Amino acid sequence: MGVKVPWSEGAAYMDGAYMPIGECRLPVTDWGFTKSDVTYDVVHVWKGAFFRLDEHVARFQASMAGLRMRLPLDAAGIKDVLMGCVRRSGLRDSYVAMVCTRGILPPGPRLPSRATNRFIAYAVPWVWVMPPEMQERGAHLIVAKTPKIPSACIDPTIKNYHWGDMVRALFEVEDSGADSCVLLDLEGNVTEGPGFNVFAVVDGTVVSPDRGALEGITRRTVFDLCAELGVPARVSRMTAAELRDADEIFCSTTAGGIMPVSRIDGRILGNDRPGPVSLRLKDLYWRKHDQGWHATPVDYALPA
Amino acid sequence: MGVKVPWSEGAAYMDGAYMPIGECRLPVTDWGFTKSDVTYDVVHVWKGAFFRLDEHVARFQASMAGLRMRLPLDAAGIKDVLMGCVRRSGLRDSYVAMVCTRGILPPGPRLPSRATNRFIAYAVPWVWVMPPEMQERGAHLIVAKTPKIPSACIDPTIKNYHWGDMVRALFEVEDSGADSCVLLDLEGNVTEGPGFNVFAVVDGTVVSPDRGALEGITRRTVFDLCAELGVPARVSRMTAAELRDADEIFCSTTAGGIMPVSRIDGRILGNDRPGPVSLRLKDLYWRKHDQGWHATPVDYALPA
Repeated sequence: MGVKVPWSEGAAYMDGAYMPIGECRLPVTDWGFTKSDVTYDVVHVWKGAFFRLDEHVARFQASMAGLRMRLPLDAAGIKDVLMGCVRRSGLRDSYVAMVCTRGILPPGPRLPSRATNRFIAYAVPWVWVMPPEMQERGAHLIVAKTPKIPSACIDPTIKNYHWGDMVRALFEVEDSGADSCVLLDLEGNVTEGPGFNVFAVVDGTVVSPDRGALEGITRRTVFDLCAELGVPARVSRMTAAELRDADEIFCSTTAGGIMPVSRIDGRILGNDRPGPVSLRLKDLYWRKHDQGWHATPVDYALPA
Repeated sequence: MGVKVPWSEGAAYMDGAYMPIGECRLPVTDWGFTKSDVTYDVVHVWKGAFFRLDEHVARFQASMAGLRMRLPLDAAGIKDVLMGCVRRSGLRDSYVAMVCTRGILPPGPRLPSRATNRFIAYAVPWVWVMPPEMQERGAHLIVAKTPKIPSACIDPTIKNYHWGDMVRALFEVEDSGADSCVLLDLEGNVTEGPGFNVFAVVDGTVVSPDRGALEGITRRTVFDLCAELGVPARVSRMTAAELRDADEIFCSTTAGGIMPVSRIDGRILGNDRPGPVSLRLKDLYWRKHDQGWHATPVDYALPA
């Protein structure tokens, strides 16, 4: 691993070449920046293995199709690059991103199909949306006043960087002293938080919003784990009041797994600690990781 | 101008240094990219002079304040950099952008105030949102089916890169064979087009939508010109039907001025040519440019 040092902050791939993450820079005239005309996906590597890699790559390809983007790489080619980034980084626990931007428009009509789309990938050290200490005590959420961008305008099932609503909500979080937040849609229904899906446990049933949210792969994992544990689970419309009145709340994300919540808008849930259903799901999530569930091991040997 | 050749595509400024536009690249982990957490403004240079420079810089500063961003540069410092970019590019007609990104978040809580904001500026060759030939015959617009992101979610008066709705609408344009489009809000009111404000001329009065749109500086200029010509003008709520039934339609943008429209959704306006009020405003707009109206000349002499 003689090349490890300069790549220790992460390894990236852009325009056909690998580079340390610090050198991975996007031209400021790429529509991926100037129009946020971009989609992405994130898969994690835990103890040297990807989790649900094929599903993340398939969702990324579906997102690109939804934005009418095309790459010369197929799923196998994308996976090769992701593997190449993790290998070069040497990271055993990593946040691995794949990104497709519209690209730079050639001179002439300002019509997006004229651009050549650009593929970027990178592997950086593991990111916790909520750090382990916060997960131990349970996160403190608020229901943000900033409404989520409607699905009719920006399709939330196509993973995107339209985070202006989320960032405004994060300033509400800062002002309130909470840890994070959930956003409502314009009709007052719970959608998701900045970077995670949200769940309520009500009378022993796990419920997640049925609209306005990313169809998270960790969310899917939660439903799989509920089935294994015999816990009833479903998606449903959910108002802010229903969320506040829940017996338990937890969140899910690739960047941290299943994250219990102990307070919402100052209301203390249970005994101000993670609830029992949340904890069973979180424990099983990590236990099954250790058992190689949905794992694709990284080959860390550098090519000759 | 011995340095002109490598800078001929444009000149940029980032992280304290000037560079050719082709070298101006943003780290892919800047929240300006990964969260579209960025604001910007664009001022044009025509025949060697900025137009309404102070107003563009003031709006840029107001946009930054709206997003709680701060730069070590004041208005004079920003103008110095813009001037420096145009001078190094040597461009007499230029599209000049100033951009502020959130920056890269240091390790720790994912809260936006923890980042150091980043300033980018660049001067590139003049951009026509609608080229002169299209302006001659009048642009062909459609009313897009994709609704504009609501103002409650993303404040349209803070110039932003949340263009996912606009890009979807531009694919509708491509599919229809039109030139461009206007977007409606979720209540069916006309807002703006991708990169321009829109105006209807109804019974001799110029009307522009009162909601959901950027408070364009060229829009302000249109109102100034209407006052000078004695043409009544106002902002008002405007439905798609009212726009389609207008006597004339035109658009306004920094990147092209006042741009007449001759068709909307296949309906031919007037005699399929730019209308008389639109033409008078367009002509006066350019005539007053030549007279030095709101002009700040660029000093093209390179510093010693």
